[in-house]
Amino acid sequence: MNTVEIIKKKRNGSSLSKDELKYIIDGYMNGSIADYQISAFLMAVFYIGMNDTETLLLTELMLNSGTTIDLSFLKGSKADKHSTGGVGDKTSMILAPQLALLGVYVPMISGRGLGHTGGTLDKLQSIPGFNINLSEEECKYVLQKAGCVMLGQTDNLAPADKKIYALRDVTATVDSIPLITSSILSKKLAEGTDSIVFDVKIGSGANLQDEAQSAELAKKLVSVSKKFGKKAIAVLTDMSEPLGYKTGNWLEIEECLEVMNGKQISDLIKVNNVLAGAMLFLSGITGSIDEGEKTASDMLNSGKVYNKFLEMSELQNGNTDYLKDYNNLKRAKFSKTINADKNGYINNLDAYGFGISNVMLGGGRQKTDDKIDYLSGIILHRKCGEKVNKGDVICEFFSEHKHKLDLSSDYISNSIKIDSELNFKKRLIIDIID
Amino acid sequence: MNTVEIIKKKRNGSSLSKDELKYIIDGYMNGSIADYQISAFLMAVFYIGMNDTETLLLTELMLNSGTTIDLSFLKGSKADKHSTGGVGDKTSMILAPQLALLGVYVPMISGRGLGHTGGTLDKLQSIPGFNINLSEEECKYVLQKAGCVMLGQTDNLAPADKKIYALRDVTATVDSIPLITSSILSKKLAEGTDSIVFDVKIGSGANLQDEAQSAELAKKLVSVSKKFGKKAIAVLTDMSEPLGYKTGNWLEIEECLEVMNGKQISDLIKVNNVLAGAMLFLSGITGSIDEGEKTASDMLNSGKVYNKFLEMSELQNGNTDYLKDYNNLKRAKFSKTINADKNGYINNLDAYGFGISNVMLGGGRQKTDDKIDYLSGIILHRKCGEKVNKGDVICEFFSEHKHKLDLSSDYISNSIKIDSELNFKKRLIIDIID
Repeated sequence: MNTVEIIKKKRNGSSLSKDELKYIIDGYMNGSIADYQISAFLMAVFYIGMNDTETLLLTELMLNSGTTIDLSFLKGSKADKHSTGGVGDKTSMILAPQLALLGVYVPMISGRGLGHTGGTLDKLQSIPGFNINLSEEECKYVLQKAGCVMLGQTDNLAPADKKIYALRDVTATVDSIPLITSSILSKKLAEGTDSIVFDVKIGSGANLQDEAQSAELAKKLVSVSKKFGKKAIAVLTDMSEPLGYKTGNWLEIEECLEVMNGKQISDLIKVNNVLAGAMLFLSGITGSIDEGEKTASDMLNSGKVYNKFLEMSELQNGNTDYLKDYNNLKRAKFSKTINADKNGYINNLDAYGFGISNVMLGGGRQKTDDKIDYLSGIILHRKCGEKVNKGDVICEFFSEHKHKLDLSSDYISNSIKIDSELNFKKRLIIDIID
Repeated sequence: MNTVEIIKKKRNGSSLSKDELKYIIDGYMNGSIADYQISAFLMAVFYIGMNDTETLLLTELMLNSGTTIDLSFLKGSKADKHSTGGVGDKTSMILAPQLALLGVYVPMISGRGLGHTGGTLDKLQSIPGFNINLSEEECKYVLQKAGCVMLGQTDNLAPADKKIYALRDVTATVDSIPLITSSILSKKLAEGTDSIVFDVKIGSGANLQDEAQSAELAKKLVSVSKKFGKKAIAVLTDMSEPLGYKTGNWLEIEECLEVMNGKQISDLIKVNNVLAGAMLFLSGITGSIDEGEKTASDMLNSGKVYNKFLEMSELQNGNTDYLKDYNNLKRAKFSKTINADKNGYINNLDAYGFGISNVMLGGGRQKTDDKIDYLSGIILHRKCGEKVNKGDVICEFFSEHKHKLDLSSDYISNSIKIDSELNFKKRLIIDIID
């Protein structure tokens, strides 16, 4: 076999055999195939795509490049949720303790913020002391003790994905459905859960900006997961405006703590409980997603989720006094309000624009080694569909640096659309694919 | 500007601006853009293409990455011929001295063998002592003295092309029309001639195997050359069977010497003289290509071309005794004939297959550091369209290694097609584009 011939074969539109894909992935990992050959290969895959068999083989190769976590010592269902990434997307922090309380183990391996989207690991690290770098033994200990654990990808889980992902990020080959699918699944399958629920975002704040592509991704995630013997459901959810009211690392943890203590944030709670419902249904705890949503809602309303989250945080060295003090609002040094420039209806609060603004404020990274300011971010005072009068506060920006505040508040104006007519229609749960 | 954004822009189908292309090429040359980003970019160009303006800009950037040769000290026309590469394609050795005798200076910068196609430099180096690594001063001296010179690309001519070409070769991004065009032209324009004739090959032995693509390449080469103020013509010629009877480095030099001394090899002489005619026409020596072809034919028949080739060879340290001894056949250690396995007509002598066989015999490289055996190669005894009886010799293989002889003679059987009906139609000069 020959690397150039394999690249050419894919380039010219053919599907590759197991041996050919193995030659590529093994060669990249052992150094016999250069990164410049892999990036050309990835760009060919971007254009030609991969069929389900190839996607499955690629996933399997990346999965088998590392170890998998054996959770068979846990008696009971194990489930995870994966989001394709959004703005203000903070359900993980609620779901993990909520499901643990309902008898489902949740070993949640998450990522960093990427581009305009936030990352669960960054949010968790806004809690002083919270340790996301757990060994496999520590991970298993917390999981057995609390029923849930939240951590980062370890070096030995799907290292081929780690290496390929880093290359995709700098070669404009991220937004390819088979590559996204195999990247997500190689990590999720290594976690050793029985079922996976995918939150596939649709709208300007999603990573795939085309709705048809998001639907295709959802289908592929579910079908390939099933081929690996996992139970899987994908929920297509709205990401045209930020989810909830708060965007930014600590601000999102704060909003989760508020919701766990009874605050009604309707879009966040709805998305969260549908995802939880799907996890409960797949785990056999409830007979349907709807029933699962009801069960999840009751649990959230019970107030117990808050204590479970504190328990998990404590086991992961998070400062629970800091968490319990959430009502004593922690804010960045500088703030600025953005006000309505006319009377009318808010037809758009562009999620992509708010995501980029959050990065500009210090809440995300433009380069991989950028430092994050955990208290920076955005609080919406109003959401899409609401009526406003000129001068009303639409949102408030927070940053540790005055110039970042000015830059990002200048930037945001194009992302807020107020018209005399209301033409916003909320579609929160767009589709469910199983 | 941002590398990933520029790759993404091309990837998504847009054309790039001068500044964007400059950012890419300059960045690659100064090391701020990695080879794995350039290879992804090249693969995107493979799929999306480049319009004429982009191709021109890319050519200009690669040209300006190095120096150009100033030939203004020569009074008279300067012309060159460039072939897109074929099997048995040996016109350069005849054309250069032939044109020099007709008052056109020919500074010919050639390349190595690539894939199944031979390279003029390898052929010249089969002449003991022949120096193809001339300095600019030496090149000018030989050119002024003999009227023609044949050498390899120097480090300071279009270094960006050199670097990008090496990357294309190992990333399956060679056969892209805008990339081929800019690669050829950045080198040819650096030579400082007034006019360029392109021999664009069509058929299985061509680098672009699709006829429509070859025609498109021919048009692009001519149109972009003209935008640089050069006179240009492209001749589309057949490469479905090897040109002439001999393939292999010394064997091709030998066949050229035979033709210079009066041997009639009809296809080789026809292609050669049409190309020469086009060069004479562009140089203003004749009023048409046809008239140029006639003038070239007369010169070839005069026998003077042979002496001019010896003169140039001597100036470049080539052993002229070895050349003059060409009738005393120099052959590799082992040989083997391939015979007709039935009566019938030869409908195909697949040029690609013969090219690969020549490489297998030792006449080309499979890796860049492979050593070439200059005497190995293939002599056809019969050509397409001829009638043969079972047992007739079709061709003879030569190699310094017996196992290579066996391997390549086994390989060639699929490349020779003998049928009871004659359905071969020769189209030698397929089109002329000006």
